[in-house]
Amino acid sequence: MADAVKTRLAELGLTLPVSAAPVANYVPFHVVDGWVYTSGQLPMTDKGLSCTGRLGADVDVATGVEAAKLAALQVIAKLNDATEGNLDRIEKIVRVDVFVASAIDFFDQPTIGNGASDLFVAAFGDAGRHTRNAVGVAVLPRNAPVEVAVIAKLKA
Amino acid sequence: MADAVKTRLAELGLTLPVSAAPVANYVPFHVVDGWVYTSGQLPMTDKGLSCTGRLGADVDVATGVEAAKLAALQVIAKLNDATEGNLDRIEKIVRVDVFVASAIDFFDQPTIGNGASDLFVAAFGDAGRHTRNAVGVAVLPRNAPVEVAVIAKLKA
Amino acid sequence: MADAVKTRLAELGLTLPVSAAPVANYVPFHVVDGWVYTSGQLPMTDKGLSCTGRLGADVDVATGVEAAKLAALQVIAKLNDATEGNLDRIEKIVRVDVFVASAIDFFDQPTIGNGASDLFVAAFGDAGRHTRNAVGVAVLPRNAPVEVAVIAKLKA
Repeated sequence: MADAVKTRLAELGLTLPVSAAPVANYVPFHVVDGWVYTSGQLPMTDKGLSCTGRLGADVDVATGVEAAKLAALQVIAKLNDATEGNLDRIEKIVRVDVFVASAIDFFDQPTIGNGASDLFVAAFGDAGRHTRNAVGVAVLPRNAPVEVAVIAKLKA
Repeated sequence: MADAVKTRLAELGLTLPVSAAPVANYVPFHVVDGWVYTSGQLPMTDKGLSCTGRLGADVDVATGVEAAKLAALQVIAKLNDATEGNLDRIEKIVRVDVFVASAIDFFDQPTIGNGASDLFVAAFGDAGRHTRNAVGVAVLPRNAPVEVAVIAKLKA
Repeated sequence: MADAVKTRLAELGLTLPVSAAPVANYVPFHVVDGWVYTSGQLPMTDKGLSCTGRLGADVDVATGVEAAKLAALQVIAKLNDATEGNLDRIEKIVRVDVFVASAIDFFDQPTIGNGASDLFVAAFGDAGRHTRNAVGVAVLPRNAPVEVAVIAKLKA
């Protein structure tokens, strides 16, 4: 039976992707004392990265926003694993880190970050409203345009 | 009535700024289980960003230190909101993240970071002593020179 | 008497370094409610930084991996201080942040990150398996090639 989060995702035409495996020696998530930490997620699809390159150079804003959304969808897949398939157990998405691979004259990381943030809010409602760091880094693993990680709290 | 933190800020000639609104779809802070997370703050004044550009390129060290201080003051304004106006409820500033927009030959992020760190210690005393990450990023939202975020713990 | 972690480090031919002092106005670690936060650590040896520069420009992959390992060893020295010399008190390394100073065409931050991650797993076993963010930043303090920070949980 779908939880409310998956129902909302379905209404948006989205399904959880096959959870991407870590690309190195780390784990996709940890649950400790009711806190969930996810590793940084890239915009992986079943065909690999949705795009590569940097904002302001190789990747335009619309493509970057979509990439951030796909990275956030990978985060939600990890949260789904962390909650054993019941995303309604998420009390709050507390912190979202958004790293945007950026040319030095690209200043619109907030818009790119909203690709992730808007999905969290659409999927989780109030529980998806979060604090955020969004910064423009030089380059990301595999030349990905964006990486997104989350700290969330489970219901007691 | 002013708490001890605001009294110390006043002695430094500082008052809490009007709390800057988020520039995108996120919230300024969360309080969860006694932990306060703030979103990344830019050096906003009532006239907008105090300066723009990168350290080692457009922004000199003294200006960067002042910008970090102003970003930290925005963080304190968020902590003030999170504590409903009583900053004495902060037990400890646990972690400070400092992102410094940097040319690739600018290596003095620690000095820029101290613009924020020194203010936290001056304002909160021992409770303001913190762990820190300070890194040189390619670029920041709105071409800001520095972004500062905090994780703090409230008194029980 | 050595804890199991130090025994494993010895088997790897490693000893904890003299704990590097903070390079600015912050503390090396905090312990709050059983959570340990370390400040970002550079690859410091008793002769200073093991190397300087950026991956993809001045530093090759093997040297970068070794630098990440040395930064992780500094993190472990901080965890040792945080546990008053008993690293077996670490229940879990929850989150590892790896910042890699990178030229914009260097995409292999995951391999560099493994220099740190592999050491955490070798030293702590299952307790060392962690979530991770690894990103390519423009530049790091003192022109270091890598910076590593950790959030860990102590046993109850």
